[in-house]
Amino acid sequence: MVLPDVITSLHNPQVKRLVRLRARRDREHDHVIVIEGARELSRAVQAGVDVHEVYVCPALYSPEAAQLAPGLPGRVAELSRPAFEKVSMRDHPDGVIGVAAVPDMTLLEPPGDAVVVVLHGLEKPGNVGAIVRTADAVAAAGVIVLGRGADPFGPNVIRASQGSVFTVPVVAWPEAAALAWLRGRDFRLVACTPDASRPYWDVPLTGRVALLLGTEHQGLPAGWRTDGAVRIPMNPAGGADSLNVATAAALMLYESARQRHVHAAGGTPA
Amino acid sequence: MVLPDVITSLHNPQVKRLVRLRARRDREHDHVIVIEGARELSRAVQAGVDVHEVYVCPALYSPEAAQLAPGLPGRVAELSRPAFEKVSMRDHPDGVIGVAAVPDMTLLEPPGDAVVVVLHGLEKPGNVGAIVRTADAVAAAGVIVLGRGADPFGPNVIRASQGSVFTVPVVAWPEAAALAWLRGRDFRLVACTPDASRPYWDVPLTGRVALLLGTEHQGLPAGWRTDGAVRIPMNPAGGADSLNVATAAALMLYESARQRHVHAAGGTPA
Repeated sequence: MVLPDVITSLHNPQVKRLVRLRARRDREHDHVIVIEGARELSRAVQAGVDVHEVYVCPALYSPEAAQLAPGLPGRVAELSRPAFEKVSMRDHPDGVIGVAAVPDMTLLEPPGDAVVVVLHGLEKPGNVGAIVRTADAVAAAGVIVLGRGADPFGPNVIRASQGSVFTVPVVAWPEAAALAWLRGRDFRLVACTPDASRPYWDVPLTGRVALLLGTEHQGLPAGWRTDGAVRIPMNPAGGADSLNVATAAALMLYESARQRHVHAAGGTPA
Repeated sequence: MVLPDVITSLHNPQVKRLVRLRARRDREHDHVIVIEGARELSRAVQAGVDVHEVYVCPALYSPEAAQLAPGLPGRVAELSRPAFEKVSMRDHPDGVIGVAAVPDMTLLEPPGDAVVVVLHGLEKPGNVGAIVRTADAVAAAGVIVLGRGADPFGPNVIRASQGSVFTVPVVAWPEAAALAWLRGRDFRLVACTPDASRPYWDVPLTGRVALLLGTEHQGLPAGWRTDGAVRIPMNPAGGADSLNVATAAALMLYESARQRHVHAAGGTPA
C-alpha cells in the first residue's frame, strides 16, 4: 500500500464524509457500509466483502490491526490521531476503518434441515449483532430482520456480531416477502413469547424451523400465523420477569442444535 | 415524604458525595451501595435492602419512577435537573437514586439439588449483571464472584441484572473459601471451557452442581480441580470462535434447568 500525505485536518472532505456515514441514511444513499476494527475488517475481507477504502492511524494500532493493515485491499489513507478519533465510532479505536460496498446478502436455498432466526421490531443494534454472532456459532442458515428494524450492517451490529454479519446471511426483508420465502420452503414457524404455555425445550426444533423473536411487545407481524409458540421458563418466585432477547435467541438456537445432535445420534429429542 | 428545599448547587456536599460514590473504593469505605432507577430501587426495597437515602428529580421521572417515588423509604432530598444529571450514572436518568447499606448476602444452605454459578476473573459488570439476571430466571442458589472481579453491587452490575442482584444471593469470595464451601456441600464442579471435548448438553447438570465460567483466559483458579469440563459446540466453518460469557452462562444454566425438568418428569436427561 502506498500512503499519500497524512490527513490531519478535521475539515478534510474524507474526514467529513466518514463522519457523515455514521448516519444510516447517508450510508444507504452512498450504498456503502463502514467497518471499524481489525477483527471485523478481517472477517469482512475473508468473506469477500468489497472493501474499497481503508483509513488507518498507526499511532492507534492494536497488535491485530498492525498485522492486518498492510494487507488490506482498497485505497488506503492515513489519518492523524485527532482526525481518526473524530471519525471513529469507538471509545478505544484500534486504528483501522474501512468503507465497503453493501454486501449482497441473500438467503441460500436451504439444502435440507435449516434453522433461520426472524427478528420482529428489534431496534437495538447490540441485540441484533449478538444474535447474529450466536446464529453463526450454530451454523444457522440466516437471520431475517423484518421491516425497518436495526440496520443489519450498521456499525454497532457489525461490532456486536464481532464480524459474524459477514459470515451468516443477514437480510432486511419486508414482512410479506419473508413470510412467502419461509412458507414456500416449508419452514415451521415457532414464536418465542412469554404468553405461550409450552417450554421451548418441549417442542421439536429440528427440520426446517424459523425462530421468531421480538414479538413480546409487538405481537406477531400482520398476517402471520405460527405453527407453535414457546416460552422460556422463568422462576415465578424470582424478580426477573423476562430475559434479554439475545439471550432468548441463544437458548432457542442452541436447543435446536442440541435436538439435531440428539437426533443425529439416533436418540429422541427432548 | 417531606422534601426540604431543592438542592441546586453542583457543589452541594450531598451532590459531591454522590459523585464520589461512583468509585468502588469510596462505596466500600462508606459501606454503602448506590441504586439508580425505579425498577432497580423497587426490586431492592422489595428484597428488604435498607435504602436510607433517596434523591429524586421529578422533572426527570419516568412513569414508573413517578409511581414509585412517594413510597420510597429513607430520607428524601430533591435535586434540580442539572444536579441530578451530574450525579446520575445513566444517559437517560429516570429521576430516582438511592443509597443503601451493603446487602448482607450469604449463600443459603442448599436444601437439596441446587445450581450455583462461579465466575472467575470476570471484570465486565455488564456480563456479571446479565449472568445474575439469568441465574434469577432459573432459580439458581447463588452466584459466586471469585476474588476481586467486578463489584457485585456496582452500579453497572445492578443495572445489567435489572435488580436481580437483590433477589439472587451474590457473593464475592476468595477462591479458597469458595472451594471449601462448594466441596463441603458436595457440589460437582463443571467448568465451561473451549478446550473441553464434551458438549455441555451431554453432561449431567442435575443434583448439586457448580458451573464455573470465565476460565477461558484465566485457567482454573489455583488449587481447583473440576469434576468435568464441557464446551459450547461452535460451528467450525463459522467465523465466531467463542460466545460471550453471559451467553455461555445462560446456555449452561438453562441446560441444567431443562435436565431437571426432564428428570422431574421421569425421563432421562440428555
